[in-house]
Amino acid sequence: MLRAVIRAWRYVSGKPGREETRVDELREQLDPDHTVLWIDAEAPDDSDALHALKAELGMGANVVDAILNPRERTKLMRYGDYFHVAVHDCECSRGVVNSREIDIVTGPGWLLTVRHPADDGSPVDLDEVARRFELQRVEHRDTEHGFLLWAIFDVLVDGYFDVTDMVDDRLDEIEERVFPDPPTDRSTPNVPREIFAVRSDLTTVRRAAAPLREVVNAIIRREIEFVDDEAVVHFHDVYDRVLRVGDLVEAQRDLLNGLLEANLAVTSNQLNQVMKKMTSWGAILIVATLIAGIYGMNFRHMPELRWQYGYALALGLMGITTFVLWRYFKKKNWL
Amino acid sequence: MLRAVIRAWRYVSGKPGREETRVDELREQLDPDHTVLWIDAEAPDDSDALHALKAELGMGANVVDAILNPRERTKLMRYGDYFHVAVHDCECSRGVVNSREIDIVTGPGWLLTVRHPADDGSPVDLDEVARRFELQRVEHRDTEHGFLLWAIFDVLVDGYFDVTDMVDDRLDEIEERVFPDPPTDRSTPNVPREIFAVRSDLTTVRRAAAPLREVVNAIIRREIEFVDDEAVVHFHDVYDRVLRVGDLVEAQRDLLNGLLEANLAVTSNQLNQVMKKMTSWGAILIVATLIAGIYGMNFRHMPELRWQYGYALALGLMGITTFVLWRYFKKKNWL
Amino acid sequence: MLRAVIRAWRYVSGKPGREETRVDELREQLDPDHTVLWIDAEAPDDSDALHALKAELGMGANVVDAILNPRERTKLMRYGDYFHVAVHDCECSRGVVNSREIDIVTGPGWLLTVRHPADDGSPVDLDEVARRFELQRVEHRDTEHGFLLWAIFDVLVDGYFDVTDMVDDRLDEIEERVFPDPPTDRSTPNVPREIFAVRSDLTTVRRAAAPLREVVNAIIRREIEFVDDEAVVHFHDVYDRVLRVGDLVEAQRDLLNGLLEANLAVTSNQLNQVMKKMTSWGAILIVATLIAGIYGMNFRHMPELRWQYGYALALGLMGITTFVLWRYFKKKNWL
Amino acid sequence: MLRAVIRAWRYVSGKPGREETRVDELREQLDPDHTVLWIDAEAPDDSDALHALKAELGMGANVVDAILNPRERTKLMRYGDYFHVAVHDCECSRGVVNSREIDIVTGPGWLLTVRHPADDGSPVDLDEVARRFELQRVEHRDTEHGFLLWAIFDVLVDGYFDVTDMVDDRLDEIEERVFPDPPTDRSTPNVPREIFAVRSDLTTVRRAAAPLREVVNAIIRREIEFVDDEAVVHFHDVYDRVLRVGDLVEAQRDLLNGLLEANLAVTSNQLNQVMKKMTSWGAILIVATLIAGIYGMNFRHMPELRWQYGYALALGLMGITTFVLWRYFKKKNWL
Amino acid sequence: MLRAVIRAWRYVSGKPGREETRVDELREQLDPDHTVLWIDAEAPDDSDALHALKAELGMGANVVDAILNPRERTKLMRYGDYFHVAVHDCECSRGVVNSREIDIVTGPGWLLTVRHPADDGSPVDLDEVARRFELQRVEHRDTEHGFLLWAIFDVLVDGYFDVTDMVDDRLDEIEERVFPDPPTDRSTPNVPREIFAVRSDLTTVRRAAAPLREVVNAIIRREIEFVDDEAVVHFHDVYDRVLRVGDLVEAQRDLLNGLLEANLAVTSNQLNQVMKKMTSWGAILIVATLIAGIYGMNFRHMPELRWQYGYALALGLMGITTFVLWRYFKKKNWL
Repeated sequence: MLRAVIRAWRYVSGKPGREETRVDELREQLDPDHTVLWIDAEAPDDSDALHALKAELGMGANVVDAILNPRERTKLMRYGDYFHVAVHDCECSRGVVNSREIDIVTGPGWLLTVRHPADDGSPVDLDEVARRFELQRVEHRDTEHGFLLWAIFDVLVDGYFDVTDMVDDRLDEIEERVFPDPPTDRSTPNVPREIFAVRSDLTTVRRAAAPLREVVNAIIRREIEFVDDEAVVHFHDVYDRVLRVGDLVEAQRDLLNGLLEANLAVTSNQLNQVMKKMTSWGAILIVATLIAGIYGMNFRHMPELRWQYGYALALGLMGITTFVLWRYFKKKNWL
Repeated sequence: MLRAVIRAWRYVSGKPGREETRVDELREQLDPDHTVLWIDAEAPDDSDALHALKAELGMGANVVDAILNPRERTKLMRYGDYFHVAVHDCECSRGVVNSREIDIVTGPGWLLTVRHPADDGSPVDLDEVARRFELQRVEHRDTEHGFLLWAIFDVLVDGYFDVTDMVDDRLDEIEERVFPDPPTDRSTPNVPREIFAVRSDLTTVRRAAAPLREVVNAIIRREIEFVDDEAVVHFHDVYDRVLRVGDLVEAQRDLLNGLLEANLAVTSNQLNQVMKKMTSWGAILIVATLIAGIYGMNFRHMPELRWQYGYALALGLMGITTFVLWRYFKKKNWL
Repeated sequence: MLRAVIRAWRYVSGKPGREETRVDELREQLDPDHTVLWIDAEAPDDSDALHALKAELGMGANVVDAILNPRERTKLMRYGDYFHVAVHDCECSRGVVNSREIDIVTGPGWLLTVRHPADDGSPVDLDEVARRFELQRVEHRDTEHGFLLWAIFDVLVDGYFDVTDMVDDRLDEIEERVFPDPPTDRSTPNVPREIFAVRSDLTTVRRAAAPLREVVNAIIRREIEFVDDEAVVHFHDVYDRVLRVGDLVEAQRDLLNGLLEANLAVTSNQLNQVMKKMTSWGAILIVATLIAGIYGMNFRHMPELRWQYGYALALGLMGITTFVLWRYFKKKNWL
Repeated sequence: MLRAVIRAWRYVSGKPGREETRVDELREQLDPDHTVLWIDAEAPDDSDALHALKAELGMGANVVDAILNPRERTKLMRYGDYFHVAVHDCECSRGVVNSREIDIVTGPGWLLTVRHPADDGSPVDLDEVARRFELQRVEHRDTEHGFLLWAIFDVLVDGYFDVTDMVDDRLDEIEERVFPDPPTDRSTPNVPREIFAVRSDLTTVRRAAAPLREVVNAIIRREIEFVDDEAVVHFHDVYDRVLRVGDLVEAQRDLLNGLLEANLAVTSNQLNQVMKKMTSWGAILIVATLIAGIYGMNFRHMPELRWQYGYALALGLMGITTFVLWRYFKKKNWL
Repeated sequence: MLRAVIRAWRYVSGKPGREETRVDELREQLDPDHTVLWIDAEAPDDSDALHALKAELGMGANVVDAILNPRERTKLMRYGDYFHVAVHDCECSRGVVNSREIDIVTGPGWLLTVRHPADDGSPVDLDEVARRFELQRVEHRDTEHGFLLWAIFDVLVDGYFDVTDMVDDRLDEIEERVFPDPPTDRSTPNVPREIFAVRSDLTTVRRAAAPLREVVNAIIRREIEFVDDEAVVHFHDVYDRVLRVGDLVEAQRDLLNGLLEANLAVTSNQLNQVMKKMTSWGAILIVATLIAGIYGMNFRHMPELRWQYGYALALGLMGITTFVLWRYFKKKNWL
């Protein structure tokens, strides 16, 4: 069990940057009108720390239970005057796409992010989230609560697009291997494995992105009442991009299926070609062997055997049949 | 025909545990405001016992008929002031997934579970149900009728997750066999059988879980009026988990299809490889045989036959052609 | 053209059984409050008889036209104060599933069943329908109009379940042939044909059962006003079972697809295995033939030919290469 | 550009038949209460003639544009007080299914049919339409405007059924070729081509019939106000038959897919069988050749060579190995 | 970064043609009642120019951001009193289908088109748009704002049809290659590649056209209030054609899948045929070789070897077995 790392920051109305604050004095600092408190908990297997937060922020036991169980569905749920949002990021590290859960709990004036790190690091780059949020604060000149939520979603969706970009590159690569230029009869033993891997990645993105649509839609419908109009406009953009990720993933799956079927057809064609080649060469060589066999017979009365140039003629006969058959198969496109 | 095993317990308001009670005095003990009566019938092929219960609990003949017919759909149906809920569990025993029916009939103050045992044991661990229900009773300090229903559903859904976890393991195992590391040309004769088995298991889970969503949804909409708000909050969680099972099963089916197609492609590639190898070695050996055949011809005038080192030269010629062809096919990646 | 066989029965309120009655005196016997008239017409290609009925029962020309055209969709249609219900049964005779149309026309106090016999007999066992109807009459102590309609539907749906049971057996049989125990390399030439036949049967059941749902639903919504509450409760059960047939058929189709794909994969694996075996034995035998060829060469100076045990050595060499290669291929799992 | 052939007929209330009338005096003859004017234009590439009609009938430019562009979707569109209905027929001529557009414009008292002929003739048999319309006029004793529209639809849908009947025959024929009785190892080179052709035909029917449902539904909902109740009853029947065509096409597609997959499986099985046969005969013949090769070796000391019956024994050895191997492979079902 | 090329034109009420106008005096010229200003920006990577426009036309920063990000979904979005429409064209250049984004921003009296050129040129032929718009202006005798939007959509949809026409031609071509007339055993190595390419093209068209339906539907529902009734009638036609493109693409995908499966089946059949031919010729030649091998044996007592015509008889025997086997295989349809 990892110890939870919990940090907190405070954004005060009128001040541009954030200041770090103590985790055990959150209650005193809560001030929905002028302050946004942002608490981040990493690796909250340590339930004690989380239960302390629970008391500070006035969360119920249900929410803490839900957070401690990191196998949840993407969803938005209201608990009295605060909300629990469970989302999943997607990140591509060393060729493998990972999806990790992030729980967001937000009430008037505060927002808690709980990140479940896996072997491959923690989800969502918080500095990038802070950067985008602060950019918006400068523009809108106010402590904007909903914009912090938006910044998290925005970074999240960027991660999905990184994955689809990566998939685009891999699809191009697979396409080049399935249809090499110039065409070769080299077999492509790794293509099925790669197609399967990309397919798994796309399934991961889809499972993360598809239910997010409903969550963003709920925010646009103003189910979270302290996300105001200006932030909702930004969420419209997030909604659009989530839809676009879905479209992209579908189109990529379609291409992938096309490549899989094409690969099968190409392999099938190659097999046909190999079999024809085999038949042709087999026939040519067996005919020559047959001629050799005929003159290897021990009949007493075989006039050719006594001819001066019988041997040369036999070799010539072999050469000629070989050439004629080779031409014949070449013309039939079997060689 | 098995004899039905019918037992009953009573939970009284204010008392923590349950006490076993007689099945033939249920009517006197019915007291919806202070008591929850829980009756469990196992293997109710014996309709007499069930009809006795019918009289005690005031159930109609339709319900008893429905219970005695163990091939029903998952559903929730109202009969006057009591309800019939038919659900299906899923359990994995010795590598095979079984789904068995459980009928729940519940009225004000009482709940009857009817379990249809199969060769592979009875569905739903009642002790676990009791444990979860009693935990909730301690927390909510009251005789909570709806929580007993919830406890059954909760244990049920846990069973689905056990199956999907098992399927996850088997998918990993199949993936390792389809794409061995390092790649081998060993054929995978059992993969189709395993994929088919996992597919059947997923179909079983899906058939059990998919219609459960509607049932849970009906409970959330408060169709069963004596399941109160606090219990409904817990059913929300069950609903979420049922959705998650559905998502998981879909994703696993998707992976499975991917593996099936990949396996076909891998087999196809291997066949190609085998055919190429075969063609190559066939060609090499036939050329050598041809040379042997040529010098086995009986022409009188074959100068090589009289050379001192003719034999060695012939062997050398065979060796060289073999080597040259071997290099050639190696370079073309056929060997 | 077959002559229509038309018979009629009368159920009178208070009397338990049915009495046969004359077809040409129906009008006088119509008495919706105390009597249910049941007329059955078999093979009504003979439109005269049907037009006589039309006059007796006050049906319109449209209905008779619809009945005489036996290629209709399953549906429920109102014509003034009577109704036309077209349904399709499913029956399994000699391994083949047949679906035949039954037209039901029902007005206040009368019900006409029109059955279109095919080569394989007439649809729906009327005695079984009568038996179930009379059982209900005894229980409900009244001339119950809607229960007659219900009895027909009940027998119909039982027929669907007979087919799915039969399909279950055949699926088990196909599964055993695709995955024989112990595994053999015996090919399964008849499996595609059987899978295709089962698939056709499932399509037949689905086409019969799927639109029935809407019809039963319409009856439950009380579109036929003289089917009363008590009968509707029974139709709820029919509805549930129609849904279950649909679920079963879908699950069986799924299994069937799995078997088809598994069969293809198994065949593909077998081909791979056969090719490897072929390559291996080919190589072994050609190597031996090559050795024989070498010592069949006619060089003057081949020292081995003069050795005392040259012949034995050559045979030994063949034996050893054969054994070595056999071991090699065995180890590579090619033999 | 073909010249348009435009003809017109007039049905007067109370008179049974139709009388041909002049195209350039339509306006004077318009009399919605007592007359139905039916104008038919074939091959209206000649826009002049159509524009003349436009003036006579008071149609707008949009409609004429739509008619002159013969690549439209099946639809029903209102333009002021008249309607434009675009439908597509299906006809099977010389084994190929053709779909051609028919535009119908209808206002109070008049109906214009515009038919776009293709190389394969003109769509819809007008005489048959007239026959059915006049039959209805006799029955309903009035100039019935909606019945003319109905007659066109009725003939149209009959055409769809002709195609599905034809497809039924071809499916039977393909099934017999895929599963010949008795089974042969004859390959079925034309089956893929035929399956593809039938598939294209089904796509054609579906594209014509699927959107027709919406159009008929709109008429049933009384969107065209001068199609009265009596005609709507007939359109109910058309609606039902359009649904049935859709069901049939789906079922046939399903069968076709089943045949395609079965054909692939059968081909795969045959290949397996061929490969086994090949391996078996190859092995048998090579063993015999090996024996011949052994006794063709030139060792000085080969005792068998000197035996009196050595030759006969060698031949016998060949015969025996051949027989033994033949029995062995026969038993393994490889031959 | 390319410099943006921004041009502007003005249509004044009552004047037929357009006049070019300065980009930096747009504000003065805005006059929704009598003028339509059309501004076109190509390659707007240069945000400065666009921000100048923003000030002139009173657009918000969001819109400009959206325009500068050229990876958007097809959509229609309202911003205060103006609208942002993002659409995608499709064009076929050198056998490859390209889809490029066009952003349209339109407010009262002005319309801005922003085109994102790719390597393959700029989307949408503006001259054609102008031509169609001006034709409508002549007909409707007024400065019609919505018609300009319509003209863009009309040209766009024409582009989709160009692509589907091109796909039709390629499908015919592929069909001819899959089913050559007369049938040959020539393999079709490029068919998989071509099918994959056409499939990708269809995916591109579908992704461009599918979401356009919603946008056009929104315009028909009058969400853009300054597109008046007359223009909406034209948009109905666009809507219909967008639907038709979707239908066409679906039908073409269906045909494509059919061709893919047919190609696989044809390849499979050819392989079968090749294997049979191979087996047959192999058997024939090995039998002849065996005969030669038999008479090459060195037995002392082989009477045939001493016969006068032994050699001729051996050759004759070879010829006869070859002919007999050839006839046999021919009859079995293996050759």
